[in-house]
Amino acid sequence: MPDIIVPTVTPFTPEGKVDLEKLKEHVTHLVRKGVDVIFLNGTTGMGPALSPEEKLAVLKSVYDVTNRVIFQVGGLNLYDVVKLARESKDFDIVGVASYPPYYFPRMREDWVLRYFRDLCAASPHPVYLYNYPLATGFDVSPALAKEIGCLKGVKDTTQDLAHPLSLKRVLPDLKVYTGADTLVLPSMASGLDGVVSALGNYAPELLLRVRNLVNDGKLREAVEVQQVIAELIDLSRKYGSLAANYVLVRELQGHDVGVPRPPVYPVVDEARLRSELEPLKRRVESLK
Amino acid sequence: MPDIIVPTVTPFTPEGKVDLEKLKEHVTHLVRKGVDVIFLNGTTGMGPALSPEEKLAVLKSVYDVTNRVIFQVGGLNLYDVVKLARESKDFDIVGVASYPPYYFPRMREDWVLRYFRDLCAASPHPVYLYNYPLATGFDVSPALAKEIGCLKGVKDTTQDLAHPLSLKRVLPDLKVYTGADTLVLPSMASGLDGVVSALGNYAPELLLRVRNLVNDGKLREAVEVQQVIAELIDLSRKYGSLAANYVLVRELQGHDVGVPRPPVYPVVDEARLRSELEPLKRRVESLK
Amino acid sequence: MPDIIVPTVTPFTPEGKVDLEKLKEHVTHLVRKGVDVIFLNGTTGMGPALSPEEKLAVLKSVYDVTNRVIFQVGGLNLYDVVKLARESKDFDIVGVASYPPYYFPRMREDWVLRYFRDLCAASPHPVYLYNYPLATGFDVSPALAKEIGCLKGVKDTTQDLAHPLSLKRVLPDLKVYTGADTLVLPSMASGLDGVVSALGNYAPELLLRVRNLVNDGKLREAVEVQQVIAELIDLSRKYGSLAANYVLVRELQGHDVGVPRPPVYPVVDEARLRSELEPLKRRVESLK
Amino acid sequence: MPDIIVPTVTPFTPEGKVDLEKLKEHVTHLVRKGVDVIFLNGTTGMGPALSPEEKLAVLKSVYDVTNRVIFQVGGLNLYDVVKLARESKDFDIVGVASYPPYYFPRMREDWVLRYFRDLCAASPHPVYLYNYPLATGFDVSPALAKEIGCLKGVKDTTQDLAHPLSLKRVLPDLKVYTGADTLVLPSMASGLDGVVSALGNYAPELLLRVRNLVNDGKLREAVEVQQVIAELIDLSRKYGSLAANYVLVRELQGHDVGVPRPPVYPVVDEARLRSELEPLKRRVESLK
Repeated sequence: MPDIIVPTVTPFTPEGKVDLEKLKEHVTHLVRKGVDVIFLNGTTGMGPALSPEEKLAVLKSVYDVTNRVIFQVGGLNLYDVVKLARESKDFDIVGVASYPPYYFPRMREDWVLRYFRDLCAASPHPVYLYNYPLATGFDVSPALAKEIGCLKGVKDTTQDLAHPLSLKRVLPDLKVYTGADTLVLPSMASGLDGVVSALGNYAPELLLRVRNLVNDGKLREAVEVQQVIAELIDLSRKYGSLAANYVLVRELQGHDVGVPRPPVYPVVDEARLRSELEPLKRRVESLK
Repeated sequence: MPDIIVPTVTPFTPEGKVDLEKLKEHVTHLVRKGVDVIFLNGTTGMGPALSPEEKLAVLKSVYDVTNRVIFQVGGLNLYDVVKLARESKDFDIVGVASYPPYYFPRMREDWVLRYFRDLCAASPHPVYLYNYPLATGFDVSPALAKEIGCLKGVKDTTQDLAHPLSLKRVLPDLKVYTGADTLVLPSMASGLDGVVSALGNYAPELLLRVRNLVNDGKLREAVEVQQVIAELIDLSRKYGSLAANYVLVRELQGHDVGVPRPPVYPVVDEARLRSELEPLKRRVESLK
Repeated sequence: MPDIIVPTVTPFTPEGKVDLEKLKEHVTHLVRKGVDVIFLNGTTGMGPALSPEEKLAVLKSVYDVTNRVIFQVGGLNLYDVVKLARESKDFDIVGVASYPPYYFPRMREDWVLRYFRDLCAASPHPVYLYNYPLATGFDVSPALAKEIGCLKGVKDTTQDLAHPLSLKRVLPDLKVYTGADTLVLPSMASGLDGVVSALGNYAPELLLRVRNLVNDGKLREAVEVQQVIAELIDLSRKYGSLAANYVLVRELQGHDVGVPRPPVYPVVDEARLRSELEPLKRRVESLK
Repeated sequence: MPDIIVPTVTPFTPEGKVDLEKLKEHVTHLVRKGVDVIFLNGTTGMGPALSPEEKLAVLKSVYDVTNRVIFQVGGLNLYDVVKLARESKDFDIVGVASYPPYYFPRMREDWVLRYFRDLCAASPHPVYLYNYPLATGFDVSPALAKEIGCLKGVKDTTQDLAHPLSLKRVLPDLKVYTGADTLVLPSMASGLDGVVSALGNYAPELLLRVRNLVNDGKLREAVEVQQVIAELIDLSRKYGSLAANYVLVRELQGHDVGVPRPPVYPVVDEARLRSELEPLKRRVESLK
């Protein structure tokens, strides 16, 4: 059965500190709900906005709850990245992950290749690629993933499902996870190894539900759940997903995950978001 | 069960005339194979490169074989488009179709809206939108499709499967077909109404096979067929799909569909294409 | 001194026929104003929406007024393109031009190469490339332009001025014209051979003015004129340039150039366009 | 006369530490050559890869040499950004700068607005926007720049010269600098306030030369210098500009600026770069 992986939000205090207690509580909740793996310091978790120290603190806290963890360590200073990877050696986790270097236009392919090989050499755990071209400006092609040669898996965040399918075709032993919430059903039905879904923070039940329905061959019902997922994502995007996620966890799961940290500013018109959520909430409930 | 629609190649003579006899033979073959609907004058059929007279001649010829036809009439002169649509009134076909006006950057949404309403007003048949943003530079959003108000269906050619899913969600009565060959399996498994697949010209068996497997809940086997599809498409793109299609029909289906018309020049190194095709050919055979 | 080339609008009758009389009148006016060359059947002139017969009729009419003409003949059927080029042999004109084949994604570079060589072989006149990647989806690089080997000049329509500068650097004998109205001043100041400016239809005086000021080294004053140009273009885009051009010619030059042809629909709220134009009109007057 | 601003490279030791001595030496050299302002922690200086502590250390070192400095402080943690801005209060510098938050797709415009207003509120110096959409994924439009309301200037890094021209038109009091090396001449000739040019690290003489020639109305000669600039940039890009810059400074200016820090890996085939540089080197010398 495909894995359900949740890239956890990172709760902050109003003063901009990572709220490790709230994080633990949130992850405890996700694990109890049946999520398979927790992806730390991803985009949803504001990974690129966390200092190396914060990233490590996140791992330490979550490790009290579960070791089913992929630890994202990527950054623009290889020395920091390598250090973080090494510091994870005392934690018996699923793996470490990294996006390719972001921000810099015209990133050379051979730099990305060396970056991942350097990470593999330093990492005490299997290495996962986090491919997210829209954010990093760099697309890791199946050919490059093959040439890197040391990858255990990929979180492939792209709207083009042919991309992860192509990774799986070229590298059948690679664990290939789709990162696009909008493609949960098609990904699961297409033989990929699972999904890494930000929506899992506030509606993990829907991911589990789609998986069960696909597994039982009930594609028609799965389509209905995917539609609810799509509407939740539309709503979340309308208010800025990175901030709306915090509200949606509280509204749909009932516990507090703090606030985002600027430049991701909290949702201004929260009352309106809640009111638009109301009809959807009932549909989510009915699907739990 | 989802529909399998093939946008037929248009056979040309070496002198650049449409070879109507070869076209009829090809369509006869496709119908016999079990293809549900023939899409005329699409991108694969070099639609934008055909004159209005050629487009109509294509319809007339194919109509001798089947009336399961969608007749693409789009163009940059509304008077031609309307005339073509009207001229189809004596043919009892599935519908007429059009892409939005292409080429012109910054096409206004209200022009596209009026264009489709004018087409609907003139057409004696249901109207299908052919949405292909990569080719036309204009994306018809679900909101715009809804506002147009008179569409029967959409051929949605985009790599982002969330786009047709979103059309279907917003307009449940719309027939939504995916136009991306690389997404045949995920489309069929996601509750869409079918596919319009250029690959159907040279490997319709694979489309039928995926449909049957999805229908029987055998997703794992369907994934394998989708992989063969993906490899055929990779090969076809390597040599220029618009020209390679002609070779692939002959090699995989055994009949001659003539040559493309420049600026789509025939494949130069056909021997190499055939030799690269050889191993794939056997896999296709085994799946027939 | 850099050339000022105007890609003329094509006047249509309300019934969708090319209004050749209005076209002649318009070109007569432009020539009298001091425009150096008339570019026929360009984007502004709805070139891709004209049939081969219409394109030729446009040439014949304009030729009564001037032979300082570049005749755009491009299209998606090479046989039509070659025929049109040949039919221009009795006209002693500046040259023929073509865009690369448009619409089709993944157009192969070698097809574009052959297309232009075939055009060169057929053309009785020097051949100009009309490079407009935003419209055609294909960018002719300096390296490809060099490989084509038979080009006399290029109309390079891109917002990246480094592109035409690079063409000029790689091919110093090529006539390189910028097609972006927003870059008239920088183009003239950077040693390019001139501009092909749609704005020349309704404000040719501003183009002449910029040229004179650059020539006299009065860059500061040229900047002010470029600002008025930019505001006119902003206004034109707001209402859809392809349609607004018709109104702007009438309002700023005083003669009637008919209407556009759908799917380019006439400006709906013409009164509002005129009222927004009013303050700009006075600034244009003061610069004549 | 337009300002010449150089975004300095940041020298690193082979162990990945900022080499502050080499940085001071480099800036001393640039100031002596006649560069007007030094832009610290820009893209060329690997700004997003520097920790807040490193960014501040860079300022402290360079301040020993000159106070003609713009201090880039941007980042993904507003608390760090505000702290850095405040820490610059004891330095009498030209200003602080920031790019909009990068990496995160679908960044909300109101977040960017608040981010810059928060920075303005904290900064003891004038605030400059560093707009670089290709790197950040977010374009600050003239309208948004106006709404921010507290900007002193903009480094606008885009290939579309119409963008900075439009900023200048909408906000005439804003200092508008072009960040694209390939557009040095057109920018200076178009009334903008200067350039921020990475090429200034290794060929500041060419920037000064273009400025003088434009100032003297010798545009034709300026074009020739711009062509040499373009060839240097082509060469630099071929080897990866971020790394090649280090070699080019040493080869063209004679002093050592250390090495880049991975994931920007040093140029592998330095001998080949030097040999390709040879003919250009002579042309640069002749223009000094």
